Formats: sequence, structure tokens, C-alpha cells
Amino acid sequence: MSKFAIGVDFGTESGRAVLVDVATGREVAAAVYPYSHGVIDEKLPIQGREIRLEADWALQDPEDYIRTFKSTIPAVLKESGVKPADVIGLGIDFTACTMLPVKADGTPLCLLPELRAKPHAWVKLWKHHAAQPEADKINETARKMGLKWLDRYGGKISSEWFFSKVLQILDEAPEIYQAADRLLEAADWVVWQLTGVETRNSCTAGYKAIWSKREGFPENSFFAALDPRLEKVVDEKMSRAIQSIGNRAGGLTQQAAKWTGLKPDTAVAIANVDAHVAVSAATVTEPGRMVMIMGTSICHMVLGDEEHIVPGMCGYVEDGIIPGFFGYEAGQSCVGDHFAWFVENCAPPAYAHEAKERDIDIHQLLEEKAARLKPGESGLLALDWWNGNRSVLVDVDLTGLLLGATLATKAEEIYRALIEATAYGTRVIVDTFQKNGVPIRELVACGGLPEKNRLLIQIYADVTGLEIKITASKQTPALGSAMFGAVSAGRAAGGYYSIFEAAKHMASLKKETFKPKPENQKVYDMLYAEYLRLHDYFGRSGNDVMKILKRIKVDARK
Amino acid sequence: MSKFAIGVDFGTESGRAVLVDVATGREVAAAVYPYSHGVIDEKLPIQGREIRLEADWALQDPEDYIRTFKSTIPAVLKESGVKPADVIGLGIDFTACTMLPVKADGTPLCLLPELRAKPHAWVKLWKHHAAQPEADKINETARKMGLKWLDRYGGKISSEWFFSKVLQILDEAPEIYQAADRLLEAADWVVWQLTGVETRNSCTAGYKAIWSKREGFPENSFFAALDPRLEKVVDEKMSRAIQSIGNRAGGLTQQAAKWTGLKPDTAVAIANVDAHVAVSAATVTEPGRMVMIMGTSICHMVLGDEEHIVPGMCGYVEDGIIPGFFGYEAGQSCVGDHFAWFVENCAPPAYAHEAKERDIDIHQLLEEKAARLKPGESGLLALDWWNGNRSVLVDVDLTGLLLGATLATKAEEIYRALIEATAYGTRVIVDTFQKNGVPIRELVACGGLPEKNRLLIQIYADVTGLEIKITASKQTPALGSAMFGAVSAGRAAGGYYSIFEAAKHMASLKKETFKPKPENQKVYDMLYAEYLRLHDYFGRSGNDVMKILKRIKVDARK
Repeated sequence: MSKFAIGVDFGTESGRAVLVDVATGREVAAAVYPYSHGVIDEKLPIQGREIRLEADWALQDPEDYIRTFKSTIPAVLKESGVKPADVIGLGIDFTACTMLPVKADGTPLCLLPELRAKPHAWVKLWKHHAAQPEADKINETARKMGLKWLDRYGGKISSEWFFSKVLQILDEAPEIYQAADRLLEAADWVVWQLTGVETRNSCTAGYKAIWSKREGFPENSFFAALDPRLEKVVDEKMSRAIQSIGNRAGGLTQQAAKWTGLKPDTAVAIANVDAHVAVSAATVTEPGRMVMIMGTSICHMVLGDEEHIVPGMCGYVEDGIIPGFFGYEAGQSCVGDHFAWFVENCAPPAYAHEAKERDIDIHQLLEEKAARLKPGESGLLALDWWNGNRSVLVDVDLTGLLLGATLATKAEEIYRALIEATAYGTRVIVDTFQKNGVPIRELVACGGLPEKNRLLIQIYADVTGLEIKITASKQTPALGSAMFGAVSAGRAAGGYYSIFEAAKHMASLKKETFKPKPENQKVYDMLYAEYLRLHDYFGRSGNDVMKILKRIKVDARK
Repeated sequence: MSKFAIGVDFGTESGRAVLVDVATGREVAAAVYPYSHGVIDEKLPIQGREIRLEADWALQDPEDYIRTFKSTIPAVLKESGVKPADVIGLGIDFTACTMLPVKADGTPLCLLPELRAKPHAWVKLWKHHAAQPEADKINETARKMGLKWLDRYGGKISSEWFFSKVLQILDEAPEIYQAADRLLEAADWVVWQLTGVETRNSCTAGYKAIWSKREGFPENSFFAALDPRLEKVVDEKMSRAIQSIGNRAGGLTQQAAKWTGLKPDTAVAIANVDAHVAVSAATVTEPGRMVMIMGTSICHMVLGDEEHIVPGMCGYVEDGIIPGFFGYEAGQSCVGDHFAWFVENCAPPAYAHEAKERDIDIHQLLEEKAARLKPGESGLLALDWWNGNRSVLVDVDLTGLLLGATLATKAEEIYRALIEATAYGTRVIVDTFQKNGVPIRELVACGGLPEKNRLLIQIYADVTGLEIKITASKQTPALGSAMFGAVSAGRAAGGYYSIFEAAKHMASLKKETFKPKPENQKVYDMLYAEYLRLHDYFGRSGNDVMKILKRIKVDARK
């Protein structure tokens, strides 16, 4: 008798459930729930009063997460015809840091009538960017105090992360901070709602909340230095009991069983993060193979046996991705977004016309034309900083550069140069890891881009000199969550003993792989040398023109 | 009784005649003749045989020039109703160096049946670019021999110029070189056809054939060093009798009178060059006021009292523009071409759609949107080298650069950044002249661009900090030729004693001028400092990436 697991992937605009055969990893059924309030970035979705949000805010409604369970799990059961008794485990993954303040019983503050009109009572989504002053204060304070955990995060804590958001609540709405019995990741909150047990996962704690397995959270004295009221935040509103991913959080409550149609006490895994949970679903449970989750941006994940300080990465966490390993993360902030920008702002009318005539997507047309070019043939070179640089320079104030244009330059040449630039950006990350003791011998790609753009993947192989494999699943995070669900159920229930075992059976790659072509590599090595020269000149203070232009721009817009 | 003069402007694709009132400069009638063979760059226009041309060749048919006279002059007489007896003089201007080999009686070699199928027997147009090896040889030889006339041309003779083309004929078709009794500019050849008198003008001799009033042509030993057969080229096939522009070349022959419908013996001026003849038509007959002929490229002309070596200019010639002054010339190779490239290759479909809906040109739409931006607001900075740099770096291998792009960058911001980049390019030229003893206190613009793009002119004023005036005439070169025609007729015939006197009466400016706005100047001064930093870094060997990319590109295309 087959057994099944369900993975639920909470994205930015919607939640998605996938029902998976535990023995093979086959995806039997899937369902999506678009959040009824989506991303809340203009005004609160409440009746009778208009509460507008300031710039850079991004909130969500926690009830959308519960509605996701109620909508998608019954749907995959129905579509597959699988009996609830044969679903042995459930795992979830979430965007991060996406956090909220709740009461001791788990009730979100924004569901309390008296606090519903307070923006700080709602869920702060990962891309809520209004806590930059607080992030600056955290970084400055940590530097002044000489706290070495800063090195684990490439020297900088982001405005997106947990304590930046907490400090913003305290700064701007102390009554909300006061009213919150608990402050936690939405990932952990939904697991709490399913199981009735409050747990905290090692992945978000490590990557977003400055926790490490060996040193725990920063000392109380650091929080006191930020604000005396924050001194005991960990003990008062969080938890020092951090659970390793892969563990069982608990079993489904009666109420959650009613929401989902599953059996009470079905195993639920400790919460996970979308990018990180994708790693084992991409067959990677050992060092040396970097996973690239490729979409609007790229998230790079690689495991290491040892602890290494790698300059300019996003962070590394012991047990953060796979238990027993150091999980290293880096990122590029502008990849799919880059090509979308180009198509919207720069693709000429004649191309739009041709694409329409042939009834193909304009990206497809540009890829087709760009694929006819040889490496180096355009004479163009770009720096892929249209949205700053996340790794290894960690500098949001860097901007894009295109060099080598002539009157004969065509749109597809620019398009290809932008693809190549993002590939050089990945090579900088790969090389930086390698140089600092984290070996990488192959790349595994997943996400939306590899499906759509074969040229792009070949260019990445040619530029990095590494073979690239593609995940078989198109919904890697949800598959990964289902795998952790199967692990949380355990072997006795028909699941697995460990994520290593689960990955062996449930994760797979496409047969076709992309190997570097030596003749292309030769040219790209020359071009990459030039890329690096520009990268270091503009990125490492050889010429601060990008920052000067940004300052002039800010002044001009005043 | 009013008197009239005619100016004929020989362009790249057509010839244009303008009939002008000598007393006021009023343009009474105009006519255009599109050359029947245009630019010959694929195969010779002869019947029965297919003679294909190599890459970079550009020829013309001398009969097209005669047809221009036959077509346009009768047309302007007819349109205006002016009597031939009231037309006192005729002037012409031409592209340069546009040259041809002829027999002693003036017959072009390409009109001889036995030589008609030989490409080297035809007129080589200014943009014939196949003589680069010969130009390289000239430069190398002159450098080795330490010849200081090289300084007059910014250190480099162009492949477009006279002796490069002559040497190519000798190298590739010695029988044509042998058969040619005379080698001369098409400008001088058409004047010869009108008057029956062979003359040579000081403008093309100075700017294109290494002649100077004080030193004459290079020594015979230099020509012998290039090729022993070339030793006596000046005495055998050219002339040392160079006439100052403004002089009378002769009177119309009976035959030319028949072609044109004018009276025999009507005064004809010494030939001139299109850009140079425009200077006096732009009211400029004194130092301190730079004329910019703005079209696909910009030609900058300024007069000086003294001789100065200005690094990286195109050249300077005593009496080359206005008798009695040193005429300095510089240029930008990509201006209107730049904006045309952008519109064709980068303007998004939505903009094409909006322009169509509103029934306006897309340039106009982009200008409108770009005009709403404040200086510095886009955060963008470009180097205007899409077609290399003509002055002051004199380097065709430099390429375009755009810096500062983000995901929020709009097409109109790039468009404005390209305009600004060309303005910075002009400021580099202005500053270089100033620093080297050639003062400039105001700019006078003529050509197609100032008519069409007011934003552009205001940006040039703001960037350079100089007031910009615009010529009243839309066909400045033809007006200038008519002015020289009136001077060649002399005061007794109802014309003028000198070009100074002619300019006072016949040339005029629009009332509206463009003054720099101090608040914009402040921002542009900051941006220009950053432009200069990039200009010097990429243009003066700080980083040779542009050349490396070109080499890789050439290899990739092999």
C-alpha cells in the first residue's frame, strides 16, 4: 500500500500544496491558493477605516495562511483520491523572515479588534523594507561592541531580518511590542496552528535571527545596547529551544484535521524556508554541489563539512539546511527581474511585432536570436547590478553598467550580455566559496528560469566551467517540504529515518545535463577577467561614481 | 534692383541649390537633386558587367554632380522668377575629402570606356574607408621621420583623407594612378567644370591634404618614403597654387551657362567644404564663437588669431574657414545617430504605441518625457562613444557605456542620459580648446538637430555653461556658398568686398537663445566631473577593456 506526504509552500502571493508518493517522490496532485489579501503595501484590508501604509511597507494577513490549508489540502486529497489514512506526514516551507506578534495562545495581534487598525500588529512580509534605520543601528552597535557573529553574515545584518523588524515595532509602536507575548516567524506560527505546539526552527533562527547552534542568540547586553526595553527579548518573547529541521513538531490537532481533511495526529515537520527546503529536493545532501534556486533572483546554497568565514555571503548556519552540515547561502538580487526589465523597457517594437506574428513570447524570441550569437561576438560586457549586489559585495547602492555598445548593437546582444553578466556574478560567488575553503564541483538548478531558458543554463555552464543539472520537479520547495513531512512521520509509519534517506528515494534530476563547452569557456574566461576588473573597480572603491550618482539622484528628487 | 547669388551644397545623397537675396540673405527658392547613383558601395553602376566592390568602399558618379547643376539651378530660377542677369555669383560646397582621378582636360577616368569597369577610376566619397592600411603607413612614416605637421592634425592622418586615398590607388591600381594626369577634390573639379579653370581651394588642401599656407605640402622626400613612384605627386598630378576661399575662381563657361540657364561669365567662387562654409552663414567671422553643425554627428568650428597646438582636434588651417584666421576643427562622431540608434533598438513598444496614438514622432515623445526629468534625477551617466571618439581622444576603437541603471530605469531616462553624454563630449572639446589658448565664449548651432530638439540645446547650454544661439537658416551650408558666390562677384557687381561684409548682411540668427540655467549648471558640473573621470579611465589607458572586447569580437566573428 502506497504512502503519501504533503508539502505546503507559502510564497509571496499564494500558497501551494503538493501531494507526493513517499516511495518515489512522484507528485500526484497539486493545488494553489492565491492569498485573498496578497501583499498588503498600500492600506490595511479593514472595513470602515482607511489606514494607509508608509513607503517600503509590506504586510500579510495570517488568516490567508489558514485559508491556504483549508483550500489546498482538501483539494489535493480530492484530486488524487488518496485516503487521509495514507497521508503519513506534512511539511511546510515559508518565505523568511516573515514574522508576526501574537498572544500567548497564538492569536495574532492583528486579529484582536482593538489592534486591528495598527499596521505593526500585522505580519511583516520578507520584503518589508521599512526597517533600514533599525538594521543600521544593529550593525553599528555590533561593530562598536566588536561582536564576531557579524562575520557569519558577511559583515552585515539586513533590514529584512528578524531583529530589524522587532526593533522597528518597538521604535514605532511600543504598545504593540508590549502587547505581544510572542514574536515569531510565520513559518513557526503555522506549524503551531497545525499542532497546537509552539516550536522554533533552526533554519530561520540561524539565517534570520542571529542564532547559532554553538553560541545561541546574541547576549542580552547587546539587545540592551540597542534599547533597554529589548534586553530580555529572547527570554520574554522568543525561545532558546531551537529545533533542528527534520524533527517532528507534533501531530495534527482535531481542529487542523477538520481544516485539512487529514487524520488527527498526522505527523507535522518542524518549519522550513522555501529556498533551503529546496536543497534536498534537488538531491543535494552532501558538500560540493551548489543548488541555485533561479527566479526573479538567485539563491545559492551549498553544504560544507567545516566552518569557514566566506566574505560577502548572506550567512551560514550549522544544521541550517541539512542536519550535520554547515549550510552556506549567497544570492544575486536581480536575475529574472533583469530580463523582465529589459523586455518591458528596452525591447524594440519590431521585436514585439515579430513575437506577436509568430505567437511566441518575446523572451523566447530574444533567446532564439541571442542563441545565434557566439560568446564575445556582441562586444558587450555588463555588470549585473540593476538591483544592487547581494553577494559578495553586499552593497545595495551599486547600479547597472553596460559597456561596449556601438551603432550596430542589437537588442538580442544586450539581452545576451545581461544573461552573461548574471552568470559572471554567479562565478564570482562560486570562486569566492572555493577560495575560502567551501568546495563546489557541480551546480544543480531549480526554479522557474531553468525550465524557460536553455540558453541561460548553457551560458552558466560555460562561464562557471561546471556541469549543471536540473531538478526533475517544477515545484522543488513543496516537494522538499513533503520530504521533511515524510521524515517527521518516521520509518515505522512508512516514512524515512532521515532526510538523506528521503532524498535518495524522493528527489531526482532530469537526465539531460548542461556541460561546459571548452571553446566557449575559453572566450568566457577572457571576458570574465574583464568583468572582474570592472567589478572590483566599481564595487571595491576604485571609483565611487555609482554612489555619487545615487546621492545626486536623491537630491534631485527632493 | 535686387541682386541674387546661388549656393550649391553637394551632400552625400543629393545636391541642393538655394537662390538668395544678396542684400538680406533671404532664401528665395530652393531645389534638391537626389543623385541617380547615390552612394555606390555594392557594385559599379555599369551595364553588361557585374563589378562588385570590397567592404568599406564608397564611390560616387561625377556625372551626378553635373546633373545637379542641370536640374537644380534652372529650378530655382523658375521658382523665383529671378532673371539670370540678376544672379551675380555662384558658390559651391562639397563633402570632403571626396576625390577623383581625371585627364588633363578634366575628364574623369571613370568616363573613359576603357577604364569604366575599374573601381579606382571613380570618385572616392568621403566615407570610403578602405584606405586604412595606407593611412597607417602615412602615420608611421611621418612619425619615424619626425615630421611635425602631424601635430596640426591631432597626431593622426585619417583614412578618409586625400593622400590615404591616393596611396590606395597607387597600391591597388597603379595603371589608374599612371593614367591620371590630375588628382583632385570633387569640390575643385565641379568648379573647373563650371569655369574651365582648374583651381585648388585652401580649405580641402589644408584640412585633407596636409597643406599649410606657411609650409606648403610635405617635402617630396616624405612621398618618396611612402613609395618611390609617389615622390613627385604634388608637382605631377596636383598643384602648389592653392587659392584662398573667398576668391573668384572664374566665370561661367558658355557650356555651363547652357546647363544652368545663368549668364556666361557669372562669377564662380573658389570651392569650399560643407561644414566650413557654414561658419560665416552662422554669422561667425571672428574668434571666440564656436559653430556646431549638428546632425548625425557634430562638427565644431572655431576661429583663432594665433596658431595653437590643441591635442586631439581634427586639424587647424590658416585661412581654412575665413581668410586671415586660423580655422580650428573638432568633431563628435555620434550624436543624431545615437538617438536614432536608441529609438530603433531600445524604445519600448508601449512608447511606439503612445506616439502612434497621439500622431507624434517617437523622438518627440521621448523628448517630452525626458524634458520632465531634472538633471541628475535618472541616476544615469553615459560615455557617448557608440561610434568611437573623434575628438579629443581620436580613437575609433572606444565604445559606448551606460552606468547607473536600476530596475526602475525608464527609456526616457536613458534617452536623456545619451543626450547629456553628447553634451559632456562637447564640453570636453570646448574645455580643451580653452585650455590650449583658443578662447570660446558662445556657441552657435546649426543643422538638423537644433530645429528638432529644444531639450537637447538647453542641455548643451546647461552643461557647457555657454549661451547657445541658433542660425536663422535651415540650410546653412548652401547659404554660406551663396555668400561666397556674392563675394566672388565683388562689390562692383552688387556683391560684397569680403566674407565679413557678406556675413553682416546675409547671415542671421534666431531671436530666441538658450541660456544656461544656474541651478542645472550646478548639478551638471558634478555629473561632468564623474564623466571626465570615466572618460579618462576608459579613454586614456586606465582600463583597455573596450579594446580587448573589440579584439575578442573580431576573433569571434572570424
